[in-house]
Amino acid sequence: MFDLEKLIRPQVRDLKAYHVNEPSVDVKLHANESPCNLDKSVVDKISAEIQRIDFNRYPDAACEDVRNILAGQLSVEKDQILAGNGSDELIQMIIMAFGGHGSPVIIPHPTFSMYKNIAFAMGEEVKVIPLDENFDLDRDAMVSEVKKGPSITFISYPNNPTGNCFSEETIRDILEASKGIVVIDEAYFDYSKKSFLDSLGAYPHMIILRTLSKIGMASLRLGILIASRSMADIINRVRLPYNIGSLQQRAACIALKERERIDRESSIIIEERERVFAEMKKIENIDIFNSHSNFILFRIDNGGKIFDKLVKKGVLVRNFDSEGPLKNCLRVTMGTPLENDIFLSNIKNI
Amino acid sequence: MFDLEKLIRPQVRDLKAYHVNEPSVDVKLHANESPCNLDKSVVDKISAEIQRIDFNRYPDAACEDVRNILAGQLSVEKDQILAGNGSDELIQMIIMAFGGHGSPVIIPHPTFSMYKNIAFAMGEEVKVIPLDENFDLDRDAMVSEVKKGPSITFISYPNNPTGNCFSEETIRDILEASKGIVVIDEAYFDYSKKSFLDSLGAYPHMIILRTLSKIGMASLRLGILIASRSMADIINRVRLPYNIGSLQQRAACIALKERERIDRESSIIIEERERVFAEMKKIENIDIFNSHSNFILFRIDNGGKIFDKLVKKGVLVRNFDSEGPLKNCLRVTMGTPLENDIFLSNIKNI
Repeated sequence: MFDLEKLIRPQVRDLKAYHVNEPSVDVKLHANESPCNLDKSVVDKISAEIQRIDFNRYPDAACEDVRNILAGQLSVEKDQILAGNGSDELIQMIIMAFGGHGSPVIIPHPTFSMYKNIAFAMGEEVKVIPLDENFDLDRDAMVSEVKKGPSITFISYPNNPTGNCFSEETIRDILEASKGIVVIDEAYFDYSKKSFLDSLGAYPHMIILRTLSKIGMASLRLGILIASRSMADIINRVRLPYNIGSLQQRAACIALKERERIDRESSIIIEERERVFAEMKKIENIDIFNSHSNFILFRIDNGGKIFDKLVKKGVLVRNFDSEGPLKNCLRVTMGTPLENDIFLSNIKNI
Repeated sequence: MFDLEKLIRPQVRDLKAYHVNEPSVDVKLHANESPCNLDKSVVDKISAEIQRIDFNRYPDAACEDVRNILAGQLSVEKDQILAGNGSDELIQMIIMAFGGHGSPVIIPHPTFSMYKNIAFAMGEEVKVIPLDENFDLDRDAMVSEVKKGPSITFISYPNNPTGNCFSEETIRDILEASKGIVVIDEAYFDYSKKSFLDSLGAYPHMIILRTLSKIGMASLRLGILIASRSMADIINRVRLPYNIGSLQQRAACIALKERERIDRESSIIIEERERVFAEMKKIENIDIFNSHSNFILFRIDNGGKIFDKLVKKGVLVRNFDSEGPLKNCLRVTMGTPLENDIFLSNIKNI
C-alpha cells in the first residue's frame, strides 16, 4: 500500500490546515476586519461593472488598472507595485524568489502565523526570535541573526497580534545590518500611520506589504507589494500570470477610488481604539497592550474561559491563550461603536 | 551597494516573468478560452448576488459552497476536492506538499509551461522527457524515471499545446510504476470526455486537476483538485487559508449551476473542432495534429511569419515557433463558428 505520509515534504508533515473557528455570533471582533461594509453606492457600481466583464476571458495578467490607482495613491511608480491574492500570496512569492539559500526565514515571536507556515510549506528553515517583555524586537538578537547570510526577515509593523509598532530605530538597525531581504508588513498602516515607504530608496533589500483586507475589503483578497523597481521585477518572475481574477480587479478599482471614505472610516476606528483602550484600562485584572492597529491585545486571568463566556454572550474575539508569551491573551478587533460597547459591557461584567 | 541578483533563488534567476503578448485584435484564438461569455441571465444573477456580499469580511476559508456543488457534479465527496486560484495555484500547492525530497519534478516536453516554471520557483529540479514523434509519452523513459524515487509527475491529459490525449495504457503503466505523486491535469476534459477520475480509488498517489478556465469562466480563476480524502487533506495543509475570494466563490456557485449550458457549449466547440480540423486537412503545406481539446496545433512553413500575417488580418493565434519539436507550430483555439470561418479563410489564403 502507498504510504503518502512518507512522500510529504518533511516540514509540511506537522503543519495543520488553517482551521477557521467561527462560531455563529452577532458581534464579530475576531478577524481584524473593518466593521464597515462598502457603501451601497460603491456596491452598486461593482454590480453594474459585472455586466461589462467578459467572464470567458482571462483577467489582465499585469493587473494594470489596480496598480495604476495604487501608484497614484502611494506616490510610487506602477512598476514598484505587485498585487497578490492577499498578502499571503506575496509572502509566498518573496520566499520563492529569495529562498533556497540555506539561510533561515527570520521572524520575531509572537507575530502573524502565516510567515512561519508559508516558510515551512516552501521548505525553508525558520529562525524564531522572541520579542522582549514589552513585545518589542530583541535588537541584538535580530541584528546578529540578519548579519549571518541571505536570510528573509519578516517584520509586522504594527505587529499582529500584539498591536504595537516595534521601535523604528531597531528596525533601521536591522535594515542596515541585514545581508538578506527585510519585509516590513504594514497591513495595519491605516491605523498606525507609520510607514517605511519613504525609505524605499535607502534600502534596496526592503519590501513593504500593504493590504485591502483591514480597510473594508477582506472579501476581495488583494495584497500589495511595494519595493524598488528591480526588486519588484525579480519577484514578478515567480508570480503566477493570472493571480488576480477579473472580479477582484474591477471591484478593487472601484472601491479604491473611495479613498476619502476609507480614511474617514479609519479615523473612526482609531478613535474607537482610544476609547475602548481607556475603558479597558479601568478594568481590574486586565493587562492591556498599546495598539497602533485596529485591534487590542489584552491579558486576563483564565483567558480561554473568558473567550468561551464571550462567545456565549454573542461576542467573538480571538483566543491566543496557550503556553508562552501570549498565555491568557485575547485579541479584540475594533467594531462599530455599538459593537465595542457590547464587548465592553460584557468584559466588564464577566 | 546591495546586489539583489545574488540573493535570488538560483533556479529563479533565469526565469522570465510571464509576458502576455496580446495584440489588440477582434478574433482572439490564442488563449484556449471559451468563445462564449456567460449568459446574460447568469451575469444578472451574479450582479444581484454582489449586493449580498459583506465586502469587509474574509471569504469562506473552506470554499464550502463551491466544493459542495462540484462534489455533486463530479460524484465525489466534498473532502476529496480543493479549490485553487486557478490550477496554477494547485500546481504550487502540490509541489509545496510533496517536494523537497531531492527527486525531480518529471514533465514531458512539450507540455504546459507552468509545470516547469512553478517547479523552478519552488526550487525543485526538473526532469524533462521528450514526447515521441507522435507527441505521445515515451513509455520506457517515463516509467524508468518515476521508479527512481518520490518524484512528482505532471501529465496534461489532453496535452497542451499538442492537443492529443496520451495513450491511456502508458499513463496506467506510469501510475503503476511511480514511487511518487502523479498529477493528471484534465483542464480540457470537457473537450476530451476522457478522464482518470474513476480510477481514483485504485491510485492513492494520483491527483486530478480540472478548471473553469476553459469552459467560459477564465476570468474567475478557479482550479479544481480531486484526489483521495487523505491526499486532499495533505495538500490542504499548505493551502493559503483564504485563497478564493468571495466574489469568485459566489460567481462560481451561480455559474456552475448552469451545467447544461456548459455542456451544450462544449458540444458545439467539439463539433467546430471536427469541422475546422477537416477543413485544415485539405490545406496543402499544413501538418495538423489530432486534438481532444478546444484547440488545434498545426505546423506550417514559416510559422512565425504566418503568425504575424494572421495578426495583421485581425486573428490572434498562439505562436509556438522556436527550435525544437514545435518548430513552425501554431495553436488555434476554437472560437465561435464565425470566428473559425474567419481564421480558416485567412489561413487558406495566406
